[in-house]
Amino acid sequence: MTYVNTGSFVTQPGRRDDVVAILTRHSPQLAASGCRSYEVGVDDAQPDTVFVAEIWDSAEAHEQSLHLESTREAIAEAMPLLTGEMTQQHFTSVGSPLRD
Amino acid sequence: MTYVNTGSFVTQPGRRDDVVAILTRHSPQLAASGCRSYEVGVDDAQPDTVFVAEIWDSAEAHEQSLHLESTREAIAEAMPLLTGEMTQQHFTSVGSPLRD
Repeated sequence: MTYVNTGSFVTQPGRRDDVVAILTRHSPQLAASGCRSYEVGVDDAQPDTVFVAEIWDSAEAHEQSLHLESTREAIAEAMPLLTGEMTQQHFTSVGSPLRD
Repeated sequence: MTYVNTGSFVTQPGRRDDVVAILTRHSPQLAASGCRSYEVGVDDAQPDTVFVAEIWDSAEAHEQSLHLESTREAIAEAMPLLTGEMTQQHFTSVGSPLRD
């Protein structure tokens, strides 16, 4: 079932755009692993926060993606730029008003 | 720019599926208003919470959708079933690892 993972990461002061650059680096492996949508974003009201919203074929697909080389490299590169303060919500989709 | 709106709503005890039914009611108006993705979901660990994750063409498209008849009707119908406790995150997407 469609799995949605959303969250935010607080970065070290002034390092938001560096984290955005890491997270938006093109990764063909992700699509091949069942990632349907992966938006990385910002909110001017929170200048040191990076937001993500991901839609996956399943929770298992998301879980397995964490073991991809590109994902592990991105996490290792981003970690020093983060404060550790984060939020996360994940859920299994049970429908959409866009689908009949 | 792509706008992402995510959040959760705590429902009155036992009313989660009623709220899901309202939010997943097919609404062709949404797609016509710039809604690209709208997932409604649940998490077994939080039995009285409904989650949403929406992707829009822009923040303006999302804002205007709140004035759609189908949206206003859904909100009015769901409100009595909610406790008022909610979370919300919204951001402007600046990229995706799925896009080159």
